[in-house]
Amino acid sequence: MSKILITGAGGGLGTSLRKSVASWADSVRLSDVTEITDCAPNEEFVACPLGDKDAVQALVDGVDGIVHLGGMSIEDTFETILDSNLRGTYHIFEAARKAGKPRVMFASSNHAIGFHTRDTELNGDSPFRPDSLYGLSKCYGELLARYYYDKFGVESVSVRIGSCFPEPVDRRMLATWLSPTDFDSMIQAIFSAPRTGAAMIYGVSDNLETWWNNDHARFLGWKPRDSSDRFREKVYAKPYDLKPDDLAVVHQGGGFAAAGHFED
Amino acid sequence: MSKILITGAGGGLGTSLRKSVASWADSVRLSDVTEITDCAPNEEFVACPLGDKDAVQALVDGVDGIVHLGGMSIEDTFETILDSNLRGTYHIFEAARKAGKPRVMFASSNHAIGFHTRDTELNGDSPFRPDSLYGLSKCYGELLARYYYDKFGVESVSVRIGSCFPEPVDRRMLATWLSPTDFDSMIQAIFSAPRTGAAMIYGVSDNLETWWNNDHARFLGWKPRDSSDRFREKVYAKPYDLKPDDLAVVHQGGGFAAAGHFED
Amino acid sequence: MSKILITGAGGGLGTSLRKSVASWADSVRLSDVTEITDCAPNEEFVACPLGDKDAVQALVDGVDGIVHLGGMSIEDTFETILDSNLRGTYHIFEAARKAGKPRVMFASSNHAIGFHTRDTELNGDSPFRPDSLYGLSKCYGELLARYYYDKFGVESVSVRIGSCFPEPVDRRMLATWLSPTDFDSMIQAIFSAPRTGAAMIYGVSDNLETWWNNDHARFLGWKPRDSSDRFREKVYAKPYDLKPDDLAVVHQGGGFAAAGHFED
Amino acid sequence: MSKILITGAGGGLGTSLRKSVASWADSVRLSDVTEITDCAPNEEFVACPLGDKDAVQALVDGVDGIVHLGGMSIEDTFETILDSNLRGTYHIFEAARKAGKPRVMFASSNHAIGFHTRDTELNGDSPFRPDSLYGLSKCYGELLARYYYDKFGVESVSVRIGSCFPEPVDRRMLATWLSPTDFDSMIQAIFSAPRTGAAMIYGVSDNLETWWNNDHARFLGWKPRDSSDRFREKVYAKPYDLKPDDLAVVHQGGGFAAAGHFED
Amino acid sequence: MSKILITGAGGGLGTSLRKSVASWADSVRLSDVTEITDCAPNEEFVACPLGDKDAVQALVDGVDGIVHLGGMSIEDTFETILDSNLRGTYHIFEAARKAGKPRVMFASSNHAIGFHTRDTELNGDSPFRPDSLYGLSKCYGELLARYYYDKFGVESVSVRIGSCFPEPVDRRMLATWLSPTDFDSMIQAIFSAPRTGAAMIYGVSDNLETWWNNDHARFLGWKPRDSSDRFREKVYAKPYDLKPDDLAVVHQGGGFAAAGHFED
Amino acid sequence: MSKILITGAGGGLGTSLRKSVASWADSVRLSDVTEITDCAPNEEFVACPLGDKDAVQALVDGVDGIVHLGGMSIEDTFETILDSNLRGTYHIFEAARKAGKPRVMFASSNHAIGFHTRDTELNGDSPFRPDSLYGLSKCYGELLARYYYDKFGVESVSVRIGSCFPEPVDRRMLATWLSPTDFDSMIQAIFSAPRTGAAMIYGVSDNLETWWNNDHARFLGWKPRDSSDRFREKVYAKPYDLKPDDLAVVHQGGGFAAAGHFED
Repeated sequence: MSKILITGAGGGLGTSLRKSVASWADSVRLSDVTEITDCAPNEEFVACPLGDKDAVQALVDGVDGIVHLGGMSIEDTFETILDSNLRGTYHIFEAARKAGKPRVMFASSNHAIGFHTRDTELNGDSPFRPDSLYGLSKCYGELLARYYYDKFGVESVSVRIGSCFPEPVDRRMLATWLSPTDFDSMIQAIFSAPRTGAAMIYGVSDNLETWWNNDHARFLGWKPRDSSDRFREKVYAKPYDLKPDDLAVVHQGGGFAAAGHFED
Repeated sequence: MSKILITGAGGGLGTSLRKSVASWADSVRLSDVTEITDCAPNEEFVACPLGDKDAVQALVDGVDGIVHLGGMSIEDTFETILDSNLRGTYHIFEAARKAGKPRVMFASSNHAIGFHTRDTELNGDSPFRPDSLYGLSKCYGELLARYYYDKFGVESVSVRIGSCFPEPVDRRMLATWLSPTDFDSMIQAIFSAPRTGAAMIYGVSDNLETWWNNDHARFLGWKPRDSSDRFREKVYAKPYDLKPDDLAVVHQGGGFAAAGHFED
Repeated sequence: MSKILITGAGGGLGTSLRKSVASWADSVRLSDVTEITDCAPNEEFVACPLGDKDAVQALVDGVDGIVHLGGMSIEDTFETILDSNLRGTYHIFEAARKAGKPRVMFASSNHAIGFHTRDTELNGDSPFRPDSLYGLSKCYGELLARYYYDKFGVESVSVRIGSCFPEPVDRRMLATWLSPTDFDSMIQAIFSAPRTGAAMIYGVSDNLETWWNNDHARFLGWKPRDSSDRFREKVYAKPYDLKPDDLAVVHQGGGFAAAGHFED
Repeated sequence: MSKILITGAGGGLGTSLRKSVASWADSVRLSDVTEITDCAPNEEFVACPLGDKDAVQALVDGVDGIVHLGGMSIEDTFETILDSNLRGTYHIFEAARKAGKPRVMFASSNHAIGFHTRDTELNGDSPFRPDSLYGLSKCYGELLARYYYDKFGVESVSVRIGSCFPEPVDRRMLATWLSPTDFDSMIQAIFSAPRTGAAMIYGVSDNLETWWNNDHARFLGWKPRDSSDRFREKVYAKPYDLKPDDLAVVHQGGGFAAAGHFED
Repeated sequence: MSKILITGAGGGLGTSLRKSVASWADSVRLSDVTEITDCAPNEEFVACPLGDKDAVQALVDGVDGIVHLGGMSIEDTFETILDSNLRGTYHIFEAARKAGKPRVMFASSNHAIGFHTRDTELNGDSPFRPDSLYGLSKCYGELLARYYYDKFGVESVSVRIGSCFPEPVDRRMLATWLSPTDFDSMIQAIFSAPRTGAAMIYGVSDNLETWWNNDHARFLGWKPRDSSDRFREKVYAKPYDLKPDDLAVVHQGGGFAAAGHFED
Repeated sequence: MSKILITGAGGGLGTSLRKSVASWADSVRLSDVTEITDCAPNEEFVACPLGDKDAVQALVDGVDGIVHLGGMSIEDTFETILDSNLRGTYHIFEAARKAGKPRVMFASSNHAIGFHTRDTELNGDSPFRPDSLYGLSKCYGELLARYYYDKFGVESVSVRIGSCFPEPVDRRMLATWLSPTDFDSMIQAIFSAPRTGAAMIYGVSDNLETWWNNDHARFLGWKPRDSSDRFREKVYAKPYDLKPDDLAVVHQGGGFAAAGHFED
């Protein structure tokens, strides 16, 4: 696997992931709307607004795999989400179809299933329950991935990322945390698996508390090695005043499920 | 139930449905992009492009129920589908949220699940398998309906319409046909049910051949009374040269599943 | 099948059922706490408080089948329910065990599953969700029936009766109505089936609106022939002011699910 | 569909079915080990032992569809079953593969699932539970059909025939009866369906008592029109002394499940 | 979490658990019918017969959490079970409802599902199969917990305890053993989880042999750390003469499933 | 457990397994068609063609457990598979029935389910999907085991062996590898479990990549301790040129699923 494209490479996830990918890929093409200036020798930066179809086609041409992190990662207006997450993701898959069908890793989100209650154990067959327009855009992206595989054979893995940060900082993250190390190994597994079809995997470490069962995705040859448990005491030492029936506690999506409409 | 809005009222489905709704509703507001000139005394026409948010809000204000048929009903370019089906449906639900939450009937489509094979019996728990960008827009609409109910309490029924025509005209329609009469009674049931939540129902008559099990939706108090069987001989008399492994025969979506990308 | 015992024979269900059973059984033993004075030639009355173990044993000795309708049929205090429904039903099954294991029809109730929402289609595998202490006593009875079959081989059919009245009188009953005629034919089927094991069946007619799927019980050789639909217009003509999110509309148990604690 | 082969055409099922098939097929090839002498003008008889591979190939060459009824239809020694049912069915499918892949109707049996208890409702996903070496040979045949479709694209429908006789003659048959008329219409549906894949269908009429749910097979465009109910009184008038816990009553396979080993 | 009530605190489980709870709770109220005399500084003893409603209300008032171990823990007469387990548990939940809804840990038992065979893997959706009147009382308790949450919002965790002893002493316990240490950590998890709803969890360590899948309860943030495996050799060294088809070996409930009626 | 019979003891699996069994069994009877000459003191060799019924009966008489490895372990002609795998396995079970019902370990194969795609997670309920006549013979053997238990009480464990070799030698084996050590411990568990019924277990180590969930078989008291992961680098260093849509990559059966008919 020689050339990997990372979209949204300047964001939090992308910055964390770049170094790891650069260590095993021959070369890495980094894309974002703002310039990345600290490229390693096997990295190149290409500025590209994902809403520009032709620019995305040029971006995708010649790569062997795509890590698609680009787009809004929090709630916003319908029009903003539409442009960055729906149109952008469509451009990526459509460009991949025309450019030899490199495998795509699509950064989906737990907010695609955020209206499930926390006492519901989800697996690979659980229905979507978006908690926001943002979450809904991730459902759209997962189904787009499914469609491009069913009809055109573009392989992909949609990863419903929980909370990928250096460490969990609140109670909810004890359940949703995906360690950057686990995320790195997952990305590598996705691009070295003999076959992915159009898979969906929960992006979460081996936390003691969990709502998501990843057994269906064991065929990808990946398991998390990290756990939020070593941060448990630290997190529990923080003030906490949520009640069991607060909407943000009832639902997997946390604050997203509790928030009202994002007014434009 | 006094005032019903029908979007896309000038299309095939709308024209068929108008008369029936006008017979049991106090008044009917008809909307389309092209003018409807033959309004009955209790019908009024309001021209409204669904992509215009403010216009849709004005359209929805004051109604007690919405039959949302508007938008593209066949495959088209991503941008065309985006504008009419995603943006349009969002405007309808958002307007409903602000206007007292009238119940919404959303015209979804079998193309939201068109990549399932025909020997797969679907029910209310079957996963989406869109067969086109059009089908994908219907998945989006169903999930939007779910979201607006989960978060805001807007009730809805998404109807995955098979083929609603005066009579079935080919072999596939023997399975997918929804008679106009059954569609009429379904719409009336939807607006008279004590409660719908965010339901999904297959829009299909009681055909001998069927791929869809509607048992989960019996709580709505509706069953089809019509069947495609009386047209069977007529349909079988037509030339037919599809093979069992033609893509259009393998999949529930028929020709949609077999078609390539709709180039823009 | 010669001799059938009916407990609670003086109540609403019992009075309706007596005549039918007397038409196909050799003889019928009627039991209640208040005397039944209009016995047919092949009926006999035996006064019996179900809380009296020895009296119940005497009541059960010599019968070939038991229709157990006795006990409270609405919510009451814990102690009242305990005595009539738990103790009484235990006495019936324990007496049956000692008296040659006549088959038992146990009158369970939809209130054993009344906290399910109405848009949930239930079947033979659905979990209990009692909506009252009364409903909970019916869960207990069904599990007692299961236990007496698993361990002692006492056969039974637990019938989750919806609303068994001459006709449906409100909207909810359009879904839950069990016609007396259908109830009669069900009882006869239960006692003529080659084998019942410890079955559970929903006691409901073939209504257009329904929340319960009885397919799992087709082995008993019974199907309803009646439907609430012929009363639909009459029921819809009545005033109705419940909202879709009223607790009594949301849940299958109706008013039982909406009621508070029954204070003693 | 012009030319249909029927194996085992001289047996009970075959004799009943021949006339119907001859009415809609251009020509019918009849095969059995003993000669059939009353051929209609569009019927031809070909003697063929199914254990003879070359003879079966010659038999299959040139036909457009195969109704495979041949082989033992009751329990026998392992070697007898092996030769007639395993080897014979293999020869049919292998010949079909080489001869243009005509669609195959395979006469399976309820004895492939005869060790399920009668209070278990089976559907298209229920596991095999053979009740005899005969039943086991039918499991083998169904899996062979699956294999020949998965690997070679030979289409088939395996029919788990209940009891196909002019009328039901005992209590068990009230549940398992398949009327000859329903069997005829099913065969015709199988060969006129646009596609069958490798389907399995229960061969049973619309009886009041039933253990089998055929909903999964509605895509074939067939439903039974007959019912054993009109024979209920006649059957119930016969002496009956089986107990609920007799092995033949407990299990779907009846006497097959209760019988010991067939000694050779 | 400051004040915890433990009922049945003088029994085997209670004695083991007290010390652990006292180490993390501010104060512990111990209740039993016989006096506990060795209270630690943050423990207080309150004698309370669980059948006395007012006494239970006084017992519960002011606590923040309840560990309800009280009642019969083996089979007994119906009346004894009724009084201690049904009435007692009702009093606890009813008192909790009136006293600010402290979270309840309810000591259920594997005997609520003891009639399942050992080769059946159970999970959070498995139906009840009580093996005794004792087991039936635990079904009642779990359903009471469900009811008090559905209707009144009283949170709870029902724990189907396997065998909680210092070490496993026979073959069955190799599968059912819950180490006291694992029980301690589970109790702490139950009272520190952000939300429990009305959960059910199997009370069992991480044994090599197991019949119960606890994945559905991972949202509670607990996993066992102990295993019966280190006692395997010791247990296998004991005489063992049970046959595979002994009722006590066939069923999960062991001897409870094999025992006859407990005569009063 | 004193005397164990191993059939096919001279093959690859048998040779590996013999030593382990000899270490815990009192005595071991080894059977194969070619002589084994290096018997340990507690081993005896008995030459036996499995197609000879009487010889198999003599072989089985007097043993306490049977490890049935004999027969073809790769694809061959129908007649060869028939003789060695169907007839041979039948002789083993039939002999066991007559000889006191020793427990049988049956060496099934992943090729019984080899036509499932690799992104399908299988468990104990997954349907058969044979990828070859060889795989089909293993389906037959598993169903024979089920039948002999249901009707005659012969206990068994069918093991769907992945790839049992000293180490995994290609990418597919990273998922399917069963280490000889894990196989040894599994065999010992099978013969020391209190009860097996007619179980099925996947024969696979704890590999990072896996397609098979063995949770349903935890009641046997076995878990793998080994993993293919330590060979991952070595395997990845080998040339590999399969494409994601090669039939051998798509399906679990690998090359078996991709191969054509084995011509005789």
